[in-house]
Amino acid sequence: MRRVGWRTLLFGRPLRSDAEAEEQIGPAQGVPVLGLDALASASYGPEAALTVLLLAGAGASAAAAIVPVSVAIIGLLVIVYFSYRQTIAAYPNGGGSFTVANENLGATAGLIAAAALATDYILNAAVAISAGVGAIVSAVPALLPHTLALCLAVLVLLTVINLRGIRSAGLVFMAPTYAFVGTLGVVLVLGLARALTSGTPPASVPAPAASAAAGGTIGFWLLLRAFASGCTAMTGVEAVSNGVPLFRRPTVHLARTTLTLIVAILVLLLGGLATLVCLHGITATQPGEPGYQSVVSQVVAAVVGRGAFYYATMAAVLAVLALSANTSFADFPRVCRVLAAERYLPPEFARRGSRLVFTSGIIALALLAALLLIAFGGVTDHLIPLFAIGALLAFTMSQLGMVAHWRRSDERGRLAKLVVNACGAAATSVALAVVLVSKFTHGAWITAFVIPAFVFGFRAVRRYHDRLGAVTHAAGPIDLSNLTPPVVVIPLRRLDQVGQKALRFALTIARDVYVVQVLAEELDTDDLRPQWRERVEEPVGRLGAAVPRLVQIRSPYREFFGRLLEWLGRLTAAEPDRQVIVLIPELVQRRWYQFLVSHRAWRLRAQLLLEGGPQISVMSTPGTRI
Amino acid sequence: MRRVGWRTLLFGRPLRSDAEAEEQIGPAQGVPVLGLDALASASYGPEAALTVLLLAGAGASAAAAIVPVSVAIIGLLVIVYFSYRQTIAAYPNGGGSFTVANENLGATAGLIAAAALATDYILNAAVAISAGVGAIVSAVPALLPHTLALCLAVLVLLTVINLRGIRSAGLVFMAPTYAFVGTLGVVLVLGLARALTSGTPPASVPAPAASAAAGGTIGFWLLLRAFASGCTAMTGVEAVSNGVPLFRRPTVHLARTTLTLIVAILVLLLGGLATLVCLHGITATQPGEPGYQSVVSQVVAAVVGRGAFYYATMAAVLAVLALSANTSFADFPRVCRVLAAERYLPPEFARRGSRLVFTSGIIALALLAALLLIAFGGVTDHLIPLFAIGALLAFTMSQLGMVAHWRRSDERGRLAKLVVNACGAAATSVALAVVLVSKFTHGAWITAFVIPAFVFGFRAVRRYHDRLGAVTHAAGPIDLSNLTPPVVVIPLRRLDQVGQKALRFALTIARDVYVVQVLAEELDTDDLRPQWRERVEEPVGRLGAAVPRLVQIRSPYREFFGRLLEWLGRLTAAEPDRQVIVLIPELVQRRWYQFLVSHRAWRLRAQLLLEGGPQISVMSTPGTRI
Repeated sequence: MRRVGWRTLLFGRPLRSDAEAEEQIGPAQGVPVLGLDALASASYGPEAALTVLLLAGAGASAAAAIVPVSVAIIGLLVIVYFSYRQTIAAYPNGGGSFTVANENLGATAGLIAAAALATDYILNAAVAISAGVGAIVSAVPALLPHTLALCLAVLVLLTVINLRGIRSAGLVFMAPTYAFVGTLGVVLVLGLARALTSGTPPASVPAPAASAAAGGTIGFWLLLRAFASGCTAMTGVEAVSNGVPLFRRPTVHLARTTLTLIVAILVLLLGGLATLVCLHGITATQPGEPGYQSVVSQVVAAVVGRGAFYYATMAAVLAVLALSANTSFADFPRVCRVLAAERYLPPEFARRGSRLVFTSGIIALALLAALLLIAFGGVTDHLIPLFAIGALLAFTMSQLGMVAHWRRSDERGRLAKLVVNACGAAATSVALAVVLVSKFTHGAWITAFVIPAFVFGFRAVRRYHDRLGAVTHAAGPIDLSNLTPPVVVIPLRRLDQVGQKALRFALTIARDVYVVQVLAEELDTDDLRPQWRERVEEPVGRLGAAVPRLVQIRSPYREFFGRLLEWLGRLTAAEPDRQVIVLIPELVQRRWYQFLVSHRAWRLRAQLLLEGGPQISVMSTPGTRI
Repeated sequence: MRRVGWRTLLFGRPLRSDAEAEEQIGPAQGVPVLGLDALASASYGPEAALTVLLLAGAGASAAAAIVPVSVAIIGLLVIVYFSYRQTIAAYPNGGGSFTVANENLGATAGLIAAAALATDYILNAAVAISAGVGAIVSAVPALLPHTLALCLAVLVLLTVINLRGIRSAGLVFMAPTYAFVGTLGVVLVLGLARALTSGTPPASVPAPAASAAAGGTIGFWLLLRAFASGCTAMTGVEAVSNGVPLFRRPTVHLARTTLTLIVAILVLLLGGLATLVCLHGITATQPGEPGYQSVVSQVVAAVVGRGAFYYATMAAVLAVLALSANTSFADFPRVCRVLAAERYLPPEFARRGSRLVFTSGIIALALLAALLLIAFGGVTDHLIPLFAIGALLAFTMSQLGMVAHWRRSDERGRLAKLVVNACGAAATSVALAVVLVSKFTHGAWITAFVIPAFVFGFRAVRRYHDRLGAVTHAAGPIDLSNLTPPVVVIPLRRLDQVGQKALRFALTIARDVYVVQVLAEELDTDDLRPQWRERVEEPVGRLGAAVPRLVQIRSPYREFFGRLLEWLGRLTAAEPDRQVIVLIPELVQRRWYQFLVSHRAWRLRAQLLLEGGPQISVMSTPGTRI
């Protein structure tokens, strides 16, 4: 009896719980699903670093300075890579930062890591979409007024694709990912080959106007700041370790292969781009000012000219930018799931939906990203510095956790592994310190509020669940002492078919039945007193059942709800041991739009539930078909 | 046990139903409450007429042409006045256009009149507020970006004042109304006295730039169009006849006195303004163009100069403009109330709130006006032509109804009365035809959709109520055959305190109790099978009661609601004569924000109510305090 409706069309047919294996992926889909964030950062990492150098008035020498900065970033990447290879092997069920830190360093460390990652993922989802749409909008200015709408459309698209399941997402994202890697690869190979064969450096690209003011030496502090900005390229590297269970068997091997592929491609792209930037003397231009051109665009144009291939490459870059939000969609729900398993989030987040994905996490991410996009009108550039902090903080917690893990382990070769993770921890914590210090006044202070707020929230949810568990805990045989029959109260305006049905029903469940009328000058209220004997008392009496009592409440202020609640209060006070069932007859058959025609029934139910107190139960009986 | 909270502070203490008399008013409050719309139109009626003349290129001769146009409008007003005097006497319980047309011409005529009036009132509320705010904003341009917010603030203010009761409204509006009449009266008397004493026409006001292009003769068609525009001055005259029950005894006398006062003041203002416009050769300027100045402003400035008195007068004009929306608030709810009494609207509209006003009507008007204001961003100028159509259509239906009334009456002097109302009907129908034809392409066509849509809606509500009445009608003793005890179903995840409480409750109301578990990989579901015998079956068996049955449903697709509904469907099919009560235990004590933490209970209730079918009742039991 499975309905085939819009849900199935949009999200695909439901998948059985034991069909998990079919949904699992290999490296071919793993790179697009888990690597888009990391790969896309190749297109904005170098740009971010160059912009810092440019702002400092470094001008032409900035192009040369990109080399040491890139080498530092690539070095950090490689250290982190080896670190995470070990984490994947040690935690084949998903070694997200939360799990590793929680198990090895304690709950607080785990929650900090989780909060950092959650922040990173939410920011990534919003900023990636906004960056992609921003690029499209700057290409087609007519779309400018629709920036926010486009952002939200991409967000909805990503949400739907991810709700369809992880495999669907992999298939959809394969084409743009490999187009991105392929085209950019061709550009880098061509550019480097030409430089090698010609022997002499190629002619410098005519420097855009904004960077004409050259000169100035580049100090160590500036290099550090450029490095901090370039560290945005690091985000997304943790995704694979968190998503290990997504891979089919041999799980650890395939996950490691995927991580290797992602980092290798990223290193090649970063290195190649840095070399070409240096060779062509390319500098960043100021976004938002006339003549702005992204660094990737300048490199591609310098190597292949502004032909069809240029546009194909740039289209792939844009697509990957916008879709790199997908890493958040793949991983954020898994972070939530792990938190839910430890009761730091409602159990809803640990429930797999009809397509075996964690529906609540996906929807929560979509809502939070939508909120950010709406709050910033679809332009989230200034959130970019915040990214790296979340990622680096999570990295550090995770590596520190691994160090503790190896210390307690008795595995062979654990010392070497400890050293690798310790190097990772040291490298990422230094990078974190650099980013924090250099970016603190540029918005990084916000994370100083957001991450603790998340930690506080997680703890509050856990406390609530713990208290709930303690209060509701029960064991042993159920207590059946003192079972008293309930009292039924029916608020009734008329004794029509609906009222009679309710009265019949009440007679089947209780002996004490009150029919209550609030006389408040309503057009549709009959005074039941004159008809009560003939229509109710006599027939019920003939049956031998207990006769329902009619209660009429005058309401000189024409108030209905207040008077009824007052009377119920007196009733429960008089019968403190008995439950009172308020039976609300529905007028017509239930429809979702029923609220419009009979909102009084809904309001009565809501008021009784909220204000009725611990003795009042509310029962809704179905109405007549009309 | 009456709560004194924000409600009482905002709306005043509740009034007893028998306190109606204290809330009734006399002419002193009647003029502000029911006459603001009519009086305020003195400030825009002449302007509307002059603008038409100006647009036609009539220039300076426009000032002279205002005299015949004003005479025609005043003539129409006087005819309508005598007509409505008779209506008030004939319908002392409120002779709104609906009542008169409905009783004498049939339901369709009544509904057309009601729809026309409703349209008129909604438009009036929106346009009056927007006109008042527009004037304030053009005086203080810094407020321009907040136009809509200001409009909505005035709307909220009017809504609150009217929810406080009709007497409060009268008291609040007395000051601005009498300031308006007083200051404008002084201006007119001064202006006319000066003209009479000097003997020669006063120096023409230097014509504003926009009207410099004079010349052109004024044809009959143009005069007709100017008349049609000026007819906006007619709106609001029907208000008194509709609101007769608002007056204290002697009701008819006081209502007639109020109508006389309103029409007399309106005639004097219109006549005086027309004379001064003619004497000073004032013409309209184009709104929205530089140098725009309203006609009233020009007249006042010409007579008293731009001193303190000018500003006092203009402030009174602005206040009355904005507050003239109040006539809608006083009368629209009464139109709704009469319609509700005839079941053309839900009974809610006939219910008096805590301050003896028809709360639902006031809120409906506020919402519809807010919708209009938001849709047009607070600038509703182009809706002005639509006004007069609703008012004139309602006038015509009402007068025609009175003609039919007198034909059937055997009252003395009915022939004379018939002639008066027939004249009224003829005059207003001619005016209606003129407005319709001359304004059709300027937006009047919209009313050709809106008024029939209202009529259709009223009829649909009536049909729904009639069908509901027929289906649910019942008479005689209630049918008690075939009373079968219900089945109780408890969806349960754990047998904790909450679950035990639900089970205990179920045992008090039925012998057949099912505890249903949907096993859908939820973190918080315990498998009850192993504990069932010891914790439930044995204790209940010892008590001698019927033992509850445990049902476990596997859900390979992890779906909860669908599987439960499926199982309930099979249960109701197997027991077609029995009611099934689904008992939903609430986890925690009810709070309005409970939805956030336990929305599954709410969703389950909603799904069962909407999709459960005619045998399923839903019961919510209160939860544990936490």
